[in-house]
Amino acid sequence: MADDFDVTPFDVEGTVDYDRLIEKFGTDEIDSELKQKFFELAGDSNLYVDRDFIYSHRDFDKALDEYESGEGFFLYTGVGPSGKMHIGHIVSFYFTKWLQEKFDVNVYIQVTDDEKYWDRDITDEEIEKYAKDNIREIAAVGFDPDKTFIFRNREYMGNMYDGIVKIAEKVNNSQASSVFGFEGSTNIGMNFWPAIQNVPTFFEEKRCVIPAAIDQDPYWRIQRDVAEKFGHKKTAAIHSKFIPALTGPEGKMSSSKPKTAIMLGDSPEEVEKKVKKHAYSGGGDTLEEHREEGADLSVDTSFQWLRNLLMEDDEKLKEIAEKYSSGEMMTGEIKEILIEELNEFLQNHQERKDNADEKVEKMMYEGQLAQEMWDKNIDLNLVR
Amino acid sequence: MADDFDVTPFDVEGTVDYDRLIEKFGTDEIDSELKQKFFELAGDSNLYVDRDFIYSHRDFDKALDEYESGEGFFLYTGVGPSGKMHIGHIVSFYFTKWLQEKFDVNVYIQVTDDEKYWDRDITDEEIEKYAKDNIREIAAVGFDPDKTFIFRNREYMGNMYDGIVKIAEKVNNSQASSVFGFEGSTNIGMNFWPAIQNVPTFFEEKRCVIPAAIDQDPYWRIQRDVAEKFGHKKTAAIHSKFIPALTGPEGKMSSSKPKTAIMLGDSPEEVEKKVKKHAYSGGGDTLEEHREEGADLSVDTSFQWLRNLLMEDDEKLKEIAEKYSSGEMMTGEIKEILIEELNEFLQNHQERKDNADEKVEKMMYEGQLAQEMWDKNIDLNLVR
Repeated sequence: MADDFDVTPFDVEGTVDYDRLIEKFGTDEIDSELKQKFFELAGDSNLYVDRDFIYSHRDFDKALDEYESGEGFFLYTGVGPSGKMHIGHIVSFYFTKWLQEKFDVNVYIQVTDDEKYWDRDITDEEIEKYAKDNIREIAAVGFDPDKTFIFRNREYMGNMYDGIVKIAEKVNNSQASSVFGFEGSTNIGMNFWPAIQNVPTFFEEKRCVIPAAIDQDPYWRIQRDVAEKFGHKKTAAIHSKFIPALTGPEGKMSSSKPKTAIMLGDSPEEVEKKVKKHAYSGGGDTLEEHREEGADLSVDTSFQWLRNLLMEDDEKLKEIAEKYSSGEMMTGEIKEILIEELNEFLQNHQERKDNADEKVEKMMYEGQLAQEMWDKNIDLNLVR
Repeated sequence: MADDFDVTPFDVEGTVDYDRLIEKFGTDEIDSELKQKFFELAGDSNLYVDRDFIYSHRDFDKALDEYESGEGFFLYTGVGPSGKMHIGHIVSFYFTKWLQEKFDVNVYIQVTDDEKYWDRDITDEEIEKYAKDNIREIAAVGFDPDKTFIFRNREYMGNMYDGIVKIAEKVNNSQASSVFGFEGSTNIGMNFWPAIQNVPTFFEEKRCVIPAAIDQDPYWRIQRDVAEKFGHKKTAAIHSKFIPALTGPEGKMSSSKPKTAIMLGDSPEEVEKKVKKHAYSGGGDTLEEHREEGADLSVDTSFQWLRNLLMEDDEKLKEIAEKYSSGEMMTGEIKEILIEELNEFLQNHQERKDNADEKVEKMMYEGQLAQEMWDKNIDLNLVR
């Protein structure tokens, strides 16, 4: 593949060589052996993992061993409330929910209403609006309301500041800069962010597992450097590939570029219009060319989205792949299938979001885990 | 005076040219006109100001104008709980208490149990011990328990984090570094400190006045840069000179160098022993020399401490000055006077400290201002 891809934690551009990312970040592939053990322990298989959309990890094998031995693990993820969420954002939450369900573990979800204020040109009012909205989207995913704690940093800070003080003491400006690329012009809030980002990895004694896109991996180097100083385990991660933008395999979906993304609140008509107008096609330019050469599935958004995210049915997907790559199926037809799958997914999600009030209340304040967390002071002690 | 003095916010070494410090920091002298207005509005004169121990200011004239117009001001000071307190530490609190009493204003006292953890090689247990002890010393000073709020940052963080987020966004790494000298090896906690240090200057709409030694002045540049962005006033300050170490005019008293300081908990015997053994004398080396040349009052610790801190009686001080500088009074005699004054001061202070429980409780939690503060969320809004 091309040499010109560029992946930093901040930007994803170009067509990505995923094997090279494993090499670059020094992570491990989820190989067939690990996959088998994973599914065995889960008692089920998972679409994303099965299709290698989730394909890399760091110490996830250890987390599984610890699960097997009865020690267990916990999950941590988060959201930055700077916009409405799109389908690319929510996939990771659905995978996290699947992990919670199969392994019966706690999930902590950090709403970074401080970091977004530092990182973006955004007002309090916008953050407030998006935080409320994003939390409802996440609650709609269906996490266990008694084993999930969604917290806004600005609200929960009082309970975790002791731990943050300890982490901050162990990370110097140079380290933060080398991991996050901070500069002289970076504000001191953003520069402090690594301490706040890491504290939830210490919410329990068990190993923390972070489901995230592979470009997020370097962010956790600081946690892995300091964890053992506090007698905690290094955090594990399980990594996805990037979901291609609607407009094609170059770049990422972005809420600020509506053409590139299907938003979670899009109506069936909007979905239809967007897919028909913007979904990048790997099909031939002309009917003749298409019938002769078939479609290039690797760059076709409709096929990639169906494969990686939406279509559970292996047989059906295989049939589509054969027909479309051979030129028998037209781009218009696969787009219709995508539209149908997307709308089914979105309709279910939106219904759950409309009825998420009680879930939000439980995951933030009233559920069993939330209550425990509001009664808890997060502190860290150095191992001497 | 010598050219070789060196004053940064972190160190005070050498014999100090105080006029040059005013020039260096760009502050204003408390001239006779301001002094007169100050005492008139206070309805009383003040030893420290009268003797020019407190001698410089920044916008304190504006604070007095605002007091005169009925708008008022408030006071902010703090303590870093990294050791027992000495007489040099407490003087500023006694002056602050005097200001509170005369101007009937609120006082906020920040206990920096986060900053000291970042700045020093100190354990949580030590911070805990010193925080409790320092708070009792401060409560013993006699602040109005209903108009004074003593807060530990780690405890009060939940109430002020919103404001801190806003300040942190307005200060970049370069600015923090240029004011505080932060480097790559500085931990990200300390680097974040300016945001936490500044938030109490925004606890009220009125102008904040900070009583501090003049070397602290540069620390407040950041506040003065950002205050008006939030529709607040630039903080004012009123500056003292440095209290010479017991061992002489070079350097500062330090809790970690017991010879240099009288600790607030020293017994009469310890005070006597320390003064007799270590108090730097400006007297002649021999009896003959002393009788002939007299003492150099400007470097004599006993005289300086009596003059700047302890001896209210102008007449008595004048007599001592005359007799000692002429060689009539011996070093042993002025030391006896100092010992007596110190022990009287310490005995009163220690008695009040022994009975400070209720005051601590009020200033931290139960008093009128404390209760208001615990019910309050400190946030800042940008002026657009």
